[in-house]
Amino acid sequence: MNGKMKAIVKHREGFGAELQMVDIPKIKPNEALIKVKATSICGTDVHIYTWDAWSASRVKTPYVFGHEFAGEVVEVGSQVTNVQAGDHVSAETHIICGECPQCLTGQYHICRETQIIGVDTQGCFAEYVALPATNLWKNDKELPFEIASVQEPMGNAVQTALSGPIVGKTVAVIGCGPIGLMAVAVAKASGASEVYAIDINEYRLDIASKIGATATINSGKENPVERAKQLTQGNGVDVILEMSGHPMAIDQGFKMVTNGGRVSMLGLPTQKVELDITNDIVFKGIQVHGITGRKMFETWFQTSGLLKTGAIDMNSIITHTFSLEEFEKGFDLMIKGQSGKIVLIP
Amino acid sequence: MNGKMKAIVKHREGFGAELQMVDIPKIKPNEALIKVKATSICGTDVHIYTWDAWSASRVKTPYVFGHEFAGEVVEVGSQVTNVQAGDHVSAETHIICGECPQCLTGQYHICRETQIIGVDTQGCFAEYVALPATNLWKNDKELPFEIASVQEPMGNAVQTALSGPIVGKTVAVIGCGPIGLMAVAVAKASGASEVYAIDINEYRLDIASKIGATATINSGKENPVERAKQLTQGNGVDVILEMSGHPMAIDQGFKMVTNGGRVSMLGLPTQKVELDITNDIVFKGIQVHGITGRKMFETWFQTSGLLKTGAIDMNSIITHTFSLEEFEKGFDLMIKGQSGKIVLIP
Amino acid sequence: MNGKMKAIVKHREGFGAELQMVDIPKIKPNEALIKVKATSICGTDVHIYTWDAWSASRVKTPYVFGHEFAGEVVEVGSQVTNVQAGDHVSAETHIICGECPQCLTGQYHICRETQIIGVDTQGCFAEYVALPATNLWKNDKELPFEIASVQEPMGNAVQTALSGPIVGKTVAVIGCGPIGLMAVAVAKASGASEVYAIDINEYRLDIASKIGATATINSGKENPVERAKQLTQGNGVDVILEMSGHPMAIDQGFKMVTNGGRVSMLGLPTQKVELDITNDIVFKGIQVHGITGRKMFETWFQTSGLLKTGAIDMNSIITHTFSLEEFEKGFDLMIKGQSGKIVLIP
Amino acid sequence: MNGKMKAIVKHREGFGAELQMVDIPKIKPNEALIKVKATSICGTDVHIYTWDAWSASRVKTPYVFGHEFAGEVVEVGSQVTNVQAGDHVSAETHIICGECPQCLTGQYHICRETQIIGVDTQGCFAEYVALPATNLWKNDKELPFEIASVQEPMGNAVQTALSGPIVGKTVAVIGCGPIGLMAVAVAKASGASEVYAIDINEYRLDIASKIGATATINSGKENPVERAKQLTQGNGVDVILEMSGHPMAIDQGFKMVTNGGRVSMLGLPTQKVELDITNDIVFKGIQVHGITGRKMFETWFQTSGLLKTGAIDMNSIITHTFSLEEFEKGFDLMIKGQSGKIVLIP
Repeated sequence: MNGKMKAIVKHREGFGAELQMVDIPKIKPNEALIKVKATSICGTDVHIYTWDAWSASRVKTPYVFGHEFAGEVVEVGSQVTNVQAGDHVSAETHIICGECPQCLTGQYHICRETQIIGVDTQGCFAEYVALPATNLWKNDKELPFEIASVQEPMGNAVQTALSGPIVGKTVAVIGCGPIGLMAVAVAKASGASEVYAIDINEYRLDIASKIGATATINSGKENPVERAKQLTQGNGVDVILEMSGHPMAIDQGFKMVTNGGRVSMLGLPTQKVELDITNDIVFKGIQVHGITGRKMFETWFQTSGLLKTGAIDMNSIITHTFSLEEFEKGFDLMIKGQSGKIVLIP
Repeated sequence: MNGKMKAIVKHREGFGAELQMVDIPKIKPNEALIKVKATSICGTDVHIYTWDAWSASRVKTPYVFGHEFAGEVVEVGSQVTNVQAGDHVSAETHIICGECPQCLTGQYHICRETQIIGVDTQGCFAEYVALPATNLWKNDKELPFEIASVQEPMGNAVQTALSGPIVGKTVAVIGCGPIGLMAVAVAKASGASEVYAIDINEYRLDIASKIGATATINSGKENPVERAKQLTQGNGVDVILEMSGHPMAIDQGFKMVTNGGRVSMLGLPTQKVELDITNDIVFKGIQVHGITGRKMFETWFQTSGLLKTGAIDMNSIITHTFSLEEFEKGFDLMIKGQSGKIVLIP
Repeated sequence: MNGKMKAIVKHREGFGAELQMVDIPKIKPNEALIKVKATSICGTDVHIYTWDAWSASRVKTPYVFGHEFAGEVVEVGSQVTNVQAGDHVSAETHIICGECPQCLTGQYHICRETQIIGVDTQGCFAEYVALPATNLWKNDKELPFEIASVQEPMGNAVQTALSGPIVGKTVAVIGCGPIGLMAVAVAKASGASEVYAIDINEYRLDIASKIGATATINSGKENPVERAKQLTQGNGVDVILEMSGHPMAIDQGFKMVTNGGRVSMLGLPTQKVELDITNDIVFKGIQVHGITGRKMFETWFQTSGLLKTGAIDMNSIITHTFSLEEFEKGFDLMIKGQSGKIVLIP
Repeated sequence: MNGKMKAIVKHREGFGAELQMVDIPKIKPNEALIKVKATSICGTDVHIYTWDAWSASRVKTPYVFGHEFAGEVVEVGSQVTNVQAGDHVSAETHIICGECPQCLTGQYHICRETQIIGVDTQGCFAEYVALPATNLWKNDKELPFEIASVQEPMGNAVQTALSGPIVGKTVAVIGCGPIGLMAVAVAKASGASEVYAIDINEYRLDIASKIGATATINSGKENPVERAKQLTQGNGVDVILEMSGHPMAIDQGFKMVTNGGRVSMLGLPTQKVELDITNDIVFKGIQVHGITGRKMFETWFQTSGLLKTGAIDMNSIITHTFSLEEFEKGFDLMIKGQSGKIVLIP
């Protein structure tokens, strides 16, 4: 397909981005071209937009960023057999090597040579995106594009929440950004008996309440460890979903988890974190799970399966929808923490 | 405590039972006496009532039968520390040896010397029951006695449904008696994407629909294997919960399960069953799990945790409540299959 | 590469095979050409050789059969990146679709569209074989070709033995053909406390003893269930590895397994088998695992890792080595059951 | 039983201990009296002997310390049914409450109210010890008392090594004190393909080599992370068994583990430890397991099962045997790090 398209381009090193007209990408024999119907903003996109230290060290400008989306296949390369024009799709954003020991044992999400769409390659904040067909996930045609777009971050929440048993357990979600909110909903929909949402942002705690948190804890106003102990009759919490990346919050998570509990960590601290390994890990006999990406495609099956149950109130988690042209509004709200998930419509 | 109490006594070998006045039981140092507030009828009780071959070979009359209940502790023995008068309790019905390899590794539910309350010992179809305190499970005082009573059979459903992963999966429940119905609700509340209820009894299929089955299949009217394949786009069902004990239904379960799927078996066929091991077990690479009792007390934590979520519509599963004196009405309905769970109030 | 090569050709429907000169295969862009250095005879090859009902229904003659081998890459197609000329390789024999739900969740060994090398495609009983490069497994260059060749069937033994916990457990291997013998060795090398080898063939039981079985049971001469109970002080056996496919032996396996034990089934009965589901599966609370193929490539990592330990006495399991031309000797011994594993050298 | 016995008494706050004649303990109805035949020195005993900060805060003098032993039952209380006079036994050293959520779900090793024999109660550095019968583990009468005595610390090694898959994997044992040495042997006997022993003490690395380490790394002389990467062809190590408690060594463990690997932590750092959670836990997608005690009694079954295989060279790990009177020699060697396991014979 020839022609030009609108795209949000990270045009230079530094704050911000620009809406530009760029060439519609050409597909390779193993790729598909997708017309983007909805694309959503990830925390990673905000890092790139604000140009933090991590972005400066990894991203090469100019390029189109963005990696969460849903769309419709419009063209496929000669080697592609798994999708065809007209299919509704989203994409797993890790492009993997297929040859390292991790890939050879099906642990693609921790491939040692992972490239990330929209970070290391051209992304989807655009009218079209070209992607390896094996990265595509077929969506039910009844699934609204806005919700289909946020399956990728929801997959993070799903992998984190479900990295161990959860039915009948007490769960604390530490950090209620969009993925934390999804984790609250996923934990509830997966049979957690109680879900405590912990954050310092009342806007987000309010959404957490709305979508099913059985208690909210503003850790700026009360001691979350004491409150969690109280809520659990002194037992401590069975499962901690760490989504804040904040050293103090992480330490609190380790303090509130019960003996034999689980701490699943998705948040990314920007510095080293001190842990009381003896008392909080060894003597408690807990499990700590590092979580990155989504299991391909086990997590995607779980995610789309959970969406089918109707138990996930995604419409309350997606707080704003803008046109692609209005992307700056979306980034502003994300930076201020005054949003859940934000979707852009090209 | 001295005095007499009402009790349903299996008074002789043969059909039926009798309401009698009997001595209130005396407790041993390790036991507690419980005032029974609600007691429910299990399929096993129906076997004893109708005096089938199994009952004739195992049960010694006369005695008080019944094993599902909820009540209030009124007296504890000198060695008892885990409960006290006033506590609301139900009971795990397996009394275990504590010394076999299974018990020594925490697999109490498959103790090789298990005795069952109300089968091998005096039961709870009475105003009072005396039980080893370590068999007791403390209930929240807000939990209605009727619902607390049915945690024991719900525990069977929970252990069966949760003997492997279930989130986002398709689940078929074969056999929708009271425990099958509970399994439908448990699977839904634990994140199953779709739950197919299979039976030949429309009364029960109607309840299944009401409590969350996404499809019902009357296997007397249509081929359940074909219907399940159709519902799963030809993939087959991820998880089979076998609760019928019927040879043909069991075979159908093995035919409809997908490669790598799980068949969790709680139903008890009365004869040997022919299986196509090569095609239905080996080549499919499936897992078959035999399920008996409830894990002590992991299953009880899961069960009471799920009840807390509010996602289990137990009021639709408990279809009838009678006084203890009206026990014959309850057994009649159970025998005819015209009921969900039936609760008796002493 | 052009030219002719020696190959064992299944030349017609019926008993036997023929050594013929055939064209060296041409590779596709995603394939590699391998010079075969050692190739071993599988039970499946014997079925094809003797032309049983299964072969008649599946195999299309004439073609080169055989699927176990080790060799050296001599040429690779244009798309191949994971191997290069000079690499020593064996091959996973399942060619999978990559698109079914099983493949999409990394369960390639139970792909619903599996094709098997040497059954559905040209095989390796030849001087050269052309295969998809993604099916190749790189061998250490120090690993002798004879042993590298038998990693594929050893992988069956590994997947069967390790489909659940095994350290410190009692294990019974039912059926001591080559894969059964490997299972004895694998179980021992993986920490099983006792391994009971069960067969009716004394030749094979002798090898079992030599490679580490702690007891052998000739089930033609004594009751294996009673003997196993005795060996385990009445507890029953923790883990059953079913490799016979024989209905009576299978039933015995279910009788000897302890409560909560595991029955991993690789053997393929040719008819339906009657099981006492109530007493042997449900009340015992056991797990039954159907095993087919090898997990890609987790099982291969385990297999080559175990070979590195030096704890597997493969030289006693490989009882005969012949030239490719002498293939009839090998098949004769296999048919008579007077061999362990047999290797052919092209 | 009346009379006096020899015992090593921690007689006062401060360094050292004293051999004294004390009363033979009286048993309670649920206890057994055991004649101690061999008792071994744990690192915990060394802490108590040298009177470190932890001991000063927890231990109340005077009392008999010591908790690892093997002996023969000489008398049982009236409620005891699981052992009888003449039985050879060792003991699980955690005395648990039986009522906390952890105990109620079979996770006794992380009971929240654990008391430790010889720390919180009278110990076994004596001719006799009285213990709750449910803590006793029956030994085969052929098992030498010296080896039976060290099953308790070996259980720590077993639980650490086997808290996740190990067959065919590369394993690094960090810290080669007695339990680290046992972990080397356990990993090998359980099918690890390669085991790297890491310490700064050449005496201990020599023992590690002797009992099966495939490589030893003196981390005082070379960079263990680089060496481990080299030994694994750049992949990193699959499984880390952390037994040093040393902050730098712990950090090195997290650096050398491969993506998706496991870090099982038994060592007890005396201060907080800084971890690079983002790069070493989250992005790697690893699992961290805190390990304490032994699973009751699953770990004991595994331990005695492994001893039966003959694959554990315990005689090389037990480097010294002294009479009870010579206890100071034993403690001196332990303090200097010039020993493996040390056994005392009363």
